Amino acid sequence: MRILLAQSAGFCFGVKRAITVAFEAAEQHERLTSLGPLIHSPQMVRKLEEKGVEVREHAEDIDDGAVLVRSHGLSHGEIEALQAKQLTIVDATCPFVRKAQKYAEQLAAAGYFVVVVGEKDHPEVQGIVSYAGKRVAVVADQAEAAAIRATRIGIVAQTTQSLDNLREVVAACLKQAQDLRVFNTICDATALRQQEARRLSAEADLMLVVGGFNSANTTRLAQICREIQPRTHHVETAQQIENDWFSGVEVVGITAGASTPEWIIRETVARVESLAKQMV
Amino acid sequence: MRILLAQSAGFCFGVKRAITVAFEAAEQHERLTSLGPLIHSPQMVRKLEEKGVEVREHAEDIDDGAVLVRSHGLSHGEIEALQAKQLTIVDATCPFVRKAQKYAEQLAAAGYFVVVVGEKDHPEVQGIVSYAGKRVAVVADQAEAAAIRATRIGIVAQTTQSLDNLREVVAACLKQAQDLRVFNTICDATALRQQEARRLSAEADLMLVVGGFNSANTTRLAQICREIQPRTHHVETAQQIENDWFSGVEVVGITAGASTPEWIIRETVARVESLAKQMV
Repeated sequence: MRILLAQSAGFCFGVKRAITVAFEAAEQHERLTSLGPLIHSPQMVRKLEEKGVEVREHAEDIDDGAVLVRSHGLSHGEIEALQAKQLTIVDATCPFVRKAQKYAEQLAAAGYFVVVVGEKDHPEVQGIVSYAGKRVAVVADQAEAAAIRATRIGIVAQTTQSLDNLREVVAACLKQAQDLRVFNTICDATALRQQEARRLSAEADLMLVVGGFNSANTTRLAQICREIQPRTHHVETAQQIENDWFSGVEVVGITAGASTPEWIIRETVARVESLAKQMV
Repeated sequence: MRILLAQSAGFCFGVKRAITVAFEAAEQHERLTSLGPLIHSPQMVRKLEEKGVEVREHAEDIDDGAVLVRSHGLSHGEIEALQAKQLTIVDATCPFVRKAQKYAEQLAAAGYFVVVVGEKDHPEVQGIVSYAGKRVAVVADQAEAAAIRATRIGIVAQTTQSLDNLREVVAACLKQAQDLRVFNTICDATALRQQEARRLSAEADLMLVVGGFNSANTTRLAQICREIQPRTHHVETAQQIENDWFSGVEVVGITAGASTPEWIIRETVARVESLAKQMV
């Protein structure tokens, strides 16, 4: 059995940076609380808990110590609530996400109706929306975009959206808008990871996609693989891999989401290697 | 034989306004010269000549009197040359074209690489381009747009372009640009006229498209009709209509470009009506 490991598997720039910031802050501050999970990897969040980093879901639940702003960013209101309590803020927001927030703010200040292309319930999107004033809408696709009525439309995208979807939304808005401004805030890392996943899925007899079940980009990655290779499994850890998936398999492709730690990818590869030996 | 006359046939807002301005100015000024033809209708240009309005092709050829700026507008350089000679300028530029010029100027001032979607050789496009500074390109379609390399792209369109073409160019630019601004300067009148022409072409056995052979919008209108009804003829005047086109024809559709005078449309309808009587 041969293993093909994606070069783009695992941490993107923003996640790497967030983890470095978090571990450094855990050393410096006696009490450090993360508002929401730092990244969408329950295993990495547990490692941080071992270093004393607690997770709280709401700003109201934090009264002292330092607060860690996660990679997806926080809403304007949450940041203000933390500032009002004079808590020390340790900002691990991905710089690309911060850029999208700033562009949304800039568009709103210039009087545009702001359209955020993305998933309504994702914390990154909720953070971006909070900077876009009151005239704002989140749209998942061109059908939702077609319902917007405004002559001046400003568009930003969740950093993990696909370029094709952004293009379709832009085309739909162009019918309404006389003045359309688009900040292409899509991060290349996602597109590259998806491209490589497509290539591997075409070569492999079985695909393993490793990453948090709560990670939107990992879930999307698994969908993309499944469209090409129906024998695709999304796992959070190596322990979830089952022996009987591998009957008749000669080539195994492995990729991982942007928030999947290196050690979990290594464990997955090791597990498949040991299975391969058993099968010979 | 039944005649279907398009409601949208003939003068658009900008052309109507240009003609009113021109005839008024012809009364007021002893000498009035038009820099280029006022509109792309040789017959209307001849009527203006009868009122004493001469046509010159270059600013250098005009030394005194008042100068008429045609509906398609003039380049920045031409306007400056006329101003330097202290000539009286009578501006018949279509307000929608003027808007496109201003947006191009605004985009250039804001540091964008300006993309003008349109026909390189059309006077309207050449006028718009002259306001866009040095970093500017005219693109006909998405293939030409794909060759542009710039991270900040500002787009305007020739007023008679199709929305679909503008959309495709925007989609192509979105791959390159991180900051994309689009002013949708397409005039609704063109789209409505084209829609009605498509509908008539499907109903009629023969289509007559009336307007100047030098008129881009009339030529495009004839193309659109021909795709649906191969028996389509582009004529400038009623005199060009030939009897043998009508054998076996029961329904004749008639439409006309934005610069086609009302009287030429009436003559065309009258000519077809008289043919219909002969055929009974």
